[in-house]
Amino acid sequence: MNEATIELTVNEAARREADAPHSLVARIAPPLTLESGRELSPLRIAYQTYGVLNADRSNAVLVCHALTGDQHVASVHPVTGKPGWWSTMIGPGRPIDTDRFFVICSNVLGGCMGTTGPASNNPATGEPYALDLPLVTIRDMVAAQAMLIDHLGIPDLFAVVGGSMGGMQVLEWAASYGDRVFAALPIATAAKHSAQNIAFHEVGRQAVTADPDWRGGRYLLEGAIPRKGLAVARMAAHITYLSEPALQTKFGRNLQDREARTFGFDADFQIESYLRHQGASFVERFDANSYLYVTRAMDYFDLAADHGGVLAKAFQGTKTRFCVVSFTSDWLFPTEDSRQIVHALNAAAANVSFVEIATDKGHDAFLLDVPELMATTRGFIDAAARVRGLATP
Amino acid sequence: MNEATIELTVNEAARREADAPHSLVARIAPPLTLESGRELSPLRIAYQTYGVLNADRSNAVLVCHALTGDQHVASVHPVTGKPGWWSTMIGPGRPIDTDRFFVICSNVLGGCMGTTGPASNNPATGEPYALDLPLVTIRDMVAAQAMLIDHLGIPDLFAVVGGSMGGMQVLEWAASYGDRVFAALPIATAAKHSAQNIAFHEVGRQAVTADPDWRGGRYLLEGAIPRKGLAVARMAAHITYLSEPALQTKFGRNLQDREARTFGFDADFQIESYLRHQGASFVERFDANSYLYVTRAMDYFDLAADHGGVLAKAFQGTKTRFCVVSFTSDWLFPTEDSRQIVHALNAAAANVSFVEIATDKGHDAFLLDVPELMATTRGFIDAAARVRGLATP
Repeated sequence: MNEATIELTVNEAARREADAPHSLVARIAPPLTLESGRELSPLRIAYQTYGVLNADRSNAVLVCHALTGDQHVASVHPVTGKPGWWSTMIGPGRPIDTDRFFVICSNVLGGCMGTTGPASNNPATGEPYALDLPLVTIRDMVAAQAMLIDHLGIPDLFAVVGGSMGGMQVLEWAASYGDRVFAALPIATAAKHSAQNIAFHEVGRQAVTADPDWRGGRYLLEGAIPRKGLAVARMAAHITYLSEPALQTKFGRNLQDREARTFGFDADFQIESYLRHQGASFVERFDANSYLYVTRAMDYFDLAADHGGVLAKAFQGTKTRFCVVSFTSDWLFPTEDSRQIVHALNAAAANVSFVEIATDKGHDAFLLDVPELMATTRGFIDAAARVRGLATP
Repeated sequence: MNEATIELTVNEAARREADAPHSLVARIAPPLTLESGRELSPLRIAYQTYGVLNADRSNAVLVCHALTGDQHVASVHPVTGKPGWWSTMIGPGRPIDTDRFFVICSNVLGGCMGTTGPASNNPATGEPYALDLPLVTIRDMVAAQAMLIDHLGIPDLFAVVGGSMGGMQVLEWAASYGDRVFAALPIATAAKHSAQNIAFHEVGRQAVTADPDWRGGRYLLEGAIPRKGLAVARMAAHITYLSEPALQTKFGRNLQDREARTFGFDADFQIESYLRHQGASFVERFDANSYLYVTRAMDYFDLAADHGGVLAKAFQGTKTRFCVVSFTSDWLFPTEDSRQIVHALNAAAANVSFVEIATDKGHDAFLLDVPELMATTRGFIDAAARVRGLATP
C-alpha cells in the first residue's frame, strides 16, 4: 500500500458525512420506510447535476450508477482525480447531451460518497452506523431517488438510464414509478441476480469479513480499514467484469517487466499486477461496509418475485419507452438476461427496442467508449426527445 | 468453524510427514533438478495403487490428480472419509478396470498428502519448508512421477490419464517421456493456463496471504492456520468449477431453510451456504502453502513455450495414442483449449481422437459420473489395450 493512500479514519468519515464538499446534498426529513419494514431518517442524498433544467421541467435525465460507481458521472472524481465514470456518454454534445438535458446522478442509498450509508453517522448513537444501518434494496435506492426528485421539484423524468446495478434501478423505476418515466434505458443488466452472481458477491463479502481489520464491521470506530479483504473482493469481482477473450488479448501470458519467470510468488504475469493494482486502488475510494450493503441489494433484486412471480406484471400498462441493451461478451449479465426483460416488456405490450452489441469488452463495455453503445443511446434519446416534444439543440 | 475441524498443527504436519500412514511412500535419494535450476532432495512421494501389475509390467496406468486432488483416487480419503475422488472411473469393472490394470496415483510434488511439499520437513532446518521449498512446475511434478515409476521398476506406462491439472501432467508426460506412454487421455485441460485462469488463481493466493494467520507462510511453525483466507480462495475457485446453468438449476435464487429473506448478511440463499460449506470443508483437508505452490505450477504451465513456441514440437515423432476430452459447459478449460491440443497433435501426425461431451456440469464434469465420459474412457482404454496386446478380462 503506498504512502499516499487515503486514510479513511473516523475523522475522515465524519468529514465526508458532514460536508460531502464535492457534491450537492439533499437532506430529507420524512422517514423512508424500507422494503425490510424498517424506517430510515434523516436521509442524506449526495448528488451531482449537469446541464440546465428547462422551464417546464421536462428535460431531466436520471443516471443510476453501478455497484462501485457514484454521482461523479461526468465530472472529476474528488478522490481519484479521474474523469467522471461516464464522461464518454454524458456531456456537451455527448449521446446524453448536457446542452439539452438536465442530468442528475445521486449516490445510492447504502453508498459511501455522501449519501446515507453504513459509514454515515447514526443519529441514535452519534457514531457510524456500521452494520446497524438497515439493509437496503434496489427498491429502497429508487425510493430515495424519487424523494430527491420530489425535493428538486421535478414532476417526472424524461429518461432514466443506467448499466449493471444502474440498470436494475432503471427497471425498478419503470416498475414502481412508471408514470414518472418517459424513457428507460437499462444496459447490461437483469431483472434478477443470478445464482452465479450471488456466489461471486458472497465470495467478496466473505473476503471482507474475513479480514480481522473489519472488526465485526466497526473498523471506522476502531481506526482500522479492512484493506486486504476489500482488495481481494475487488480483484475477484474485477475478473467478472472483463471477458476471457479481452483478458487474453490484453494480457495473455505476458510477463511483467521481466525477462523470465521468477519461480516465486511475485506478480510475474501482467494480469497479476493489473489485478493487484485494481484491488489496491479500489480500497482508496470505497468503504468496505458499503460494499457489503450494495452487493446485498443486488443479490436481493428479483423484480418478478415482487410482482407475483410474473415479470410482465411489473410493467403492466406501462407507457414508458424502453431500449434494452446487452453485450455479446458480458458473462456477468449475459444477453439472455436482457432477453427475459424484453420478453416481459413485450408481454406487457410495452414500447421496447432491444440491441445486443457485439464487443469483446465484457460487462465493462457499458462504461467504455463503445461506438455502437454511443450510437444506440444517442438514437434512442433523440427519438424519445422528439416524441416528448423536447426542442432539438 | 465447527469443533471437529482437524487442527493441522506442527505436530499434525510432522505426523503426516513422518508417516503418511494412509499411503505407500517412496523415498528417493538422488536429487531432482527442478525447472528453476534448484535441486530438491531427499524426495518423498506418497502414492496409492489399485489392481495388480502383470508379469511383463505392461498394464500400468498412471492417474494424475488435479489441483486439490490426491492419491486417494479410488479408496476412502483418510481425512474426509469420502470415497476416492474418481471411484466412478477407476475400480473393478470400471472404465479403468482394476481387474485388468495396475493403477498408480501419486500425490503431486508440492502437495500436502505425503509427497514433499511446503509442509514437509526441510532437512536443512528441521522445520517445515514453508516458502523455502523451491517453486515446482508441472514438468517437475511429472519428473517426480517418472522417478516413482522407475522406483517401482516399471519400464513404461500403458496409459497416463488425468483431468484439469491432471491433464496438464498427461500432456507433459507425452511431451517429456513420450516413449514411455502408450496411451494418453488428457481431459478438460489446456496446453497453457489462460490469463483468466491465472487471474482467478492470483485472487486465491491473495486471499490466503492476506490472512494474518498465514504468518508470511510460517503458520505451521507458529501454530496457526489461515483458515479464512484459504476458505475464500476455495469459494472463488469453486464457482469456476461449475457452470452458470448448473448453478441456476441446482440453486437458482432458492432461499436456505427460510420462508423469506432476513434483510441481513446471513447465508439467505442456498448458493451462499453451499459455498461457505465448500470453503470450510476444504481447509480441513488442504494445506494453504500447498495451494500457493500448486496453483503457481498451473499458472506457469505453457507447453508450447517450452518447445520454441510451437505446441506441435512438444509431440514431434510421438507414437502415443491420444484421446482428448472437453465439456461444452466448461468455461475454465473451454473446448477451444482442447482443440488447440488436437490441432498440435494433428500437426505432429499423432494418433488422436477428440470428444467434446455435452453436459451442463461445467469443469467439474471430469470428476462426475457423466455417462459419455465413462463410455469414452472405456472405449479408448479398451481399444488401446487391444492394440497393445493386453489380455481382455
